[in-house]
Order: sequence, then structure tokens, then C-alpha cells
Amino acid sequence: MAITMYDLAGTEAERRFSPFCWRAKMALAHKGLAVETTPWRFTEKDKLPQPNVGRVPVIVDDGKVVHDSTAIADYLEEHYADRASLFGGAAGRALTRFVQNWTETVLQPGLIRLVLLDIYRHIGPEDQAYFRRDREQRFGTTLENFVGDREPRLPAFRASLDPLRRTVERQNFISGEAPLYPDYVAFGAFQWARAISDFDVLAADDPVRAWRGRMLDLFGGLARRAPAYGD
Amino acid sequence: MAITMYDLAGTEAERRFSPFCWRAKMALAHKGLAVETTPWRFTEKDKLPQPNVGRVPVIVDDGKVVHDSTAIADYLEEHYADRASLFGGAAGRALTRFVQNWTETVLQPGLIRLVLLDIYRHIGPEDQAYFRRDREQRFGTTLENFVGDREPRLPAFRASLDPLRRTVERQNFISGEAPLYPDYVAFGAFQWARAISDFDVLAADDPVRAWRGRMLDLFGGLARRAPAYGD
Repeated sequence: MAITMYDLAGTEAERRFSPFCWRAKMALAHKGLAVETTPWRFTEKDKLPQPNVGRVPVIVDDGKVVHDSTAIADYLEEHYADRASLFGGAAGRALTRFVQNWTETVLQPGLIRLVLLDIYRHIGPEDQAYFRRDREQRFGTTLENFVGDREPRLPAFRASLDPLRRTVERQNFISGEAPLYPDYVAFGAFQWARAISDFDVLAADDPVRAWRGRMLDLFGGLARRAPAYGD
Repeated sequence: MAITMYDLAGTEAERRFSPFCWRAKMALAHKGLAVETTPWRFTEKDKLPQPNVGRVPVIVDDGKVVHDSTAIADYLEEHYADRASLFGGAAGRALTRFVQNWTETVLQPGLIRLVLLDIYRHIGPEDQAYFRRDREQRFGTTLENFVGDREPRLPAFRASLDPLRRTVERQNFISGEAPLYPDYVAFGAFQWARAISDFDVLAADDPVRAWRGRMLDLFGGLARRAPAYGD
């Protein structure tokens, strides 16, 4: 039986924009596991299987519910140990945390200052009311103000990608010649941005953009086929 | 025969402050290899064995000269493959590059804005003349101006350590339960700073400081024994 996964969606059911859900979908594909995704909206907290913490991704595998993208990656690695590793060993797994922590403290906070309002534009009225209230309280300003200076912010955002840029201009993937979970973690953030925003966060000649292209090509173009903006 | 290594020194021969030399010394200790270091000053370009590019570390192992800390790590890993690995496999080796690139584009550039002038204070007159001329040309300002705003810069520097902080507050080392080369790369930067500056770059309760303490304890206190400031 295929694994099922609750996957954050916009007004269009096929527009999937959670960076954490993209991590999980790429990890499932890496393991060669079939998945049936169920579109899920911000305000559908009651529709998730138990246990959950009101967020996606949540997967159900043969009756077992696993929530949180990191827990899902760990679950897949252990439960499907005979398939291609997501981490490449103990050192790879530990170092994955550094890439993940960089993604969550630098990359995603940088991107959200560029694309937050674009999320709002892609969700339905009920979700919009929730999203505006929740995020404006969290960030202490309006959605519009939060991204109002995104043009002048862009050079600093692009500069903040230097650790990633220098890595993927010297090797095909963050994890070396082939992608592993660290690539999916960082890619999830870029796929989130391109799923909901036409704002070009990467310059045309940026090695990070070339790496993103290699990620989009994986698994028969899994992420490239999904509704999104740009290449 | 012990490996010999040319190691950047200050006026005091035992004050060793190159972050790249510390990477190499920690890597040699990790492999359990004895090393005899030769103090080397900025202006002693002619004293290095050939080939070199005028910088340290340079090691000589049984007549073979290897320069550049990354090349030295790769050399040690291959030439002493039967000893404890520096990378923990192919994925670990690839992901090491990300930590290294973060160190070289975020950590070291952040630290140099705090401690550059302190290097000047620890080197002899001939080195001082070279260092001031070379660095003032490179940075386009005086050494004094370059670090003149280090107090107001400190909060942003400490914030920039978030990827490292979040990693080492959840596991003992960047590389997991035991240190590997990525730990030595990041540690080299902090050891450089504390070797030549009494400016407290880390708050007392910072998890990064606790990790630095664990690094100082390694190999019988190899780095803790060296002349430096603070704990």
C-alpha cells in the first residue's frame, strides 16, 4: 500500500508550497517509495491523522503516523534501511544537521522576507484570514510591510548564500556527486519560493540556480512538474 | 620520522595563530601522527620547502611536501587510510565542504573584523610592516579602522553563528558524537581568535563556547595548552 502524505496546498490543489513537505517528498522519492499526497490547507487542522501538531508533512505508512519532516526522514532511513541511504552514514547524518540548521536560520528566514506576501495570494479566503492574523502577530507587522523592502534586501540575501554557492560550484550537489537529504532540505526552501512567487531570488548566472536546476531534474522532474514560477 | 610542519607564529615562538595551521594540527592529532612544528613568520617566504605558495601550513612527510590545509587533510586521509577517518565516508567528505565554506565566508570574515588589529600586536616589527601594508591594501582601510566598530558588530557576529550554535547545542560535535575534520575547520577559526585577542567573541553561556571547550579538551588539551587568551 502506498504511503499517504498530507501536503500543504494553495487554492489550486496542485500548488504545493511547504518547504518541509518538499523535503519529505524528495526523501520518499530518494527511497523509491510511492506516495499519494492529499492536499491540505492551513485551516484544516482537524483533518490530519493523530498524532500531529497541526502542521504538515504528516505521513501514514501501513497505519503508522509520522509527523515532522525530520522525524519522517529518520523514520524512512530506519524503516527502509535496505534502500538508498538518505544520509550516507553517521557522519553524513550529523553533518546534515548543520546544513539543516543553516537552512532554517539563514536561508528560510531570508526567503520569507522576499515571498511571504506571495503565499497569501495563493491561498483561499479562509486560509488568508488565518494566515494574515497568525503571521502578522508572529512578525509584528503587516504582510505588506514585511516584504516591502524586498528589492533592496535582495543583494544581502544572495550574499548570504555564499556557503551553498561555493559548495555547489565545486561539486554537483551539497552531498557530493549525488544528492542526499541535505540537498533536499536546502532545495525545499527554494522550491517553496518558486511555487508561490515570481520574484526571482537567484540571478541567472548563479551556481545556486544551476544546482537548483539539477534538483528539479531529479526523479523524472518531480519538482519541475509541479505548478511553480520560472525555471 | 615525525612529520614536520611550518606553523605561523608571533613574536613569541609558541604563539601559533593561523586558523589553517590549527586545522592541520588537529587533523594530524586525529590521525595519531606525531608532528614537529617549526615557527614561521609572515615574511619568511624563502624558508618554506618547495613547492609552496608563500603561506602555511606546509608539511613535510618522509620527504613529501604538501601545502594548503585542505590538501593536507586529503593527503592524510588517503596516505593514512588505516587510521581514524577525518571525514567518515564520502558523504561526510562532501558535507565537510559546506561547513568549510561556511567557515570561510561567514565565520572567518566575521572574526577578522573583531581581531585583525590584535594580530598586528603579536608580531615583530618586520612582520608588522608587511602585515599593515598587505592587509590595509586588501581591506582598503587602516587596521585600526577595520576593527574600530567591533563592539557594535558583536551582536551580528554572534547571531551569524546560529547554524553552528543550533548544531552543537543538540549534539556534542558538528560531526556528531565525536569530532571529525569539520569540527577542526570551524574550531581553527576560534583558536586563531583566542590565540591573539582577549576580545571575548563568545558569550559565557553560548553553546558554541561549550563546544569550543570540548574542542580545547581534545588530544590531551593540545589547543588549550598553547598560548592564548581566556578559556
